[in-house]
Amino acid sequence: MTKRYVGIDLGGTNLKLGLASAEGELFRRLSVPTGADEGPDPVMARMAEAVRRLAEEAGLALDDLAAVGVGAPGPLDCQAGIIHFAPNLPGWINVPVRDTLQEALGRTVVLENDANAAAYGEFRVGAARDVRSMFILTLGTGVGGGIVHEGRLVRGATDTAAELGHVIVAHGGRLCGCGNRGCLEAYASATAVVERFRQEAGVSDLARRPRLEAKDVFEAAAAGDRAAARIVSETAEYLAVGIASILHVLNPEMVVLTGGMMGSGEAFLEEIRGHVRRLAFPSAWEACRLCSSRLGGDAGILGSALAAETFDRTGQLA
Amino acid sequence: MTKRYVGIDLGGTNLKLGLASAEGELFRRLSVPTGADEGPDPVMARMAEAVRRLAEEAGLALDDLAAVGVGAPGPLDCQAGIIHFAPNLPGWINVPVRDTLQEALGRTVVLENDANAAAYGEFRVGAARDVRSMFILTLGTGVGGGIVHEGRLVRGATDTAAELGHVIVAHGGRLCGCGNRGCLEAYASATAVVERFRQEAGVSDLARRPRLEAKDVFEAAAAGDRAAARIVSETAEYLAVGIASILHVLNPEMVVLTGGMMGSGEAFLEEIRGHVRRLAFPSAWEACRLCSSRLGGDAGILGSALAAETFDRTGQLA
Repeated sequence: MTKRYVGIDLGGTNLKLGLASAEGELFRRLSVPTGADEGPDPVMARMAEAVRRLAEEAGLALDDLAAVGVGAPGPLDCQAGIIHFAPNLPGWINVPVRDTLQEALGRTVVLENDANAAAYGEFRVGAARDVRSMFILTLGTGVGGGIVHEGRLVRGATDTAAELGHVIVAHGGRLCGCGNRGCLEAYASATAVVERFRQEAGVSDLARRPRLEAKDVFEAAAAGDRAAARIVSETAEYLAVGIASILHVLNPEMVVLTGGMMGSGEAFLEEIRGHVRRLAFPSAWEACRLCSSRLGGDAGILGSALAAETFDRTGQLA
Repeated sequence: MTKRYVGIDLGGTNLKLGLASAEGELFRRLSVPTGADEGPDPVMARMAEAVRRLAEEAGLALDDLAAVGVGAPGPLDCQAGIIHFAPNLPGWINVPVRDTLQEALGRTVVLENDANAAAYGEFRVGAARDVRSMFILTLGTGVGGGIVHEGRLVRGATDTAAELGHVIVAHGGRLCGCGNRGCLEAYASATAVVERFRQEAGVSDLARRPRLEAKDVFEAAAAGDRAAARIVSETAEYLAVGIASILHVLNPEMVVLTGGMMGSGEAFLEEIRGHVRRLAFPSAWEACRLCSSRLGGDAGILGSALAAETFDRTGQLA
């Protein structure tokens, strides 16, 4: 039998798991509530239990799994396998998630930043499978980033590389969750899109809706709401400023955008492209395709599984 | 005899050459006027002649030179050895400088972007000789950049990586020479410092001086000129915005600043550090030393010589 890998996307709400081949075929998925408010030990026990259940449902023993990859929010330390802190996981302070899971499962475990895992998934088997250098922006509650350079993830000296949501696009601008001002995340996260719309749209019914989401703003823009359209356009422009800056650092072959907002379709992407074309050097822009995710919500679990595969095959982190 | 390498810094005003060992000892320098207005062929003939003269002065034959490195302004193509275009070198359009020099000298020649060469020099034998990942900002007429990641230069898909002067620090801000607005270069080049001072200082004697240089502004600031001090402070802040953004992309171990402006001393550097500390994630800031060049004006020739050494030793670009 060919080797099998499990990828786990450790989210604040759900644990999402996938069983994959070394080539990145996704055979089976599983999603269970994280139960984050119970703290790290019960969550890690639930992760181990979910791996067992996923294997069992696929007719496999734990020993049939070559390795397990965990994509997790950070800051974390990939080499040591420790999550230092995670805003959406109460009580996770310096948790040795890799060694704990390794002991519980008796399998090799690899820890990876969640946005890096998404980048690696798109790089190995997604939108960027034909290139050697790319970065991803994950537009969700925050803006995450992951970079692949010459086929390997860029982690930096302390696993703080590719924090692309905190590239500054407007010096002295909107306050970001990180405490700084003007970060890309303060403009282009799904959360920021909703906040900016509420602040700028005035007294419209839509802006006063209690459970407003970024996709509602995008839908309203598409339906002709002028305030929403202005927010969407400005979001495209801020994204382009961040992307152009990063193109001038990395000059990659591809930029992949992902997250619920990107479901709004090709028009938004085309608007971003127009701004980047104007803001970036021709040699940087022409070398680069700017596109949507191919793997969507599976990028994290596939990337985690394939990061485990890389470690299993090479003995090195992806 | 141990191997000898020549590094050439191809500037718009002068050709600077250095003869170095594989370990980066600089034995001998030579500087001759570029004569750029005569166009590419005479300049390339002068480069070859200068290499011959440098070897001769050192008691060497051309055959004693293992390889020659050229650090040149771009855009250029390192793999093909071609300078596509150079703003300060009239008539240089798609000039095959590597092959032309190789034929004239009968020695292996390597072409490298000039700021990349400076980064590589600092990385191999300068301020960054003890780290594996760093970037440099060269603050001159423009703002150049070079990045070393895991011991190798980052060139990108089309040799447009590390154009760090064109990271956007103020969306919609000052017009940059590249045609875009708000680039780091539009605030932090020596040229921009002088222009900003002239625009903001009003009618002071200093601002009306016809041949004003950035170091004059820095000296005036140190001597208590309030307008000059404000410009210097703002320059430190814009540099910090750009540096913080790049830290969040690369998370390197070191940032090296170079160029005449940095001669103004530790106080300016300390002011930049204060802003970066405030703007960057603690894990990115704490991993990173921010310091001045160690090689100064020799970084380009040493980096070019050592890029030639790397190619001679490994068959790959640095």
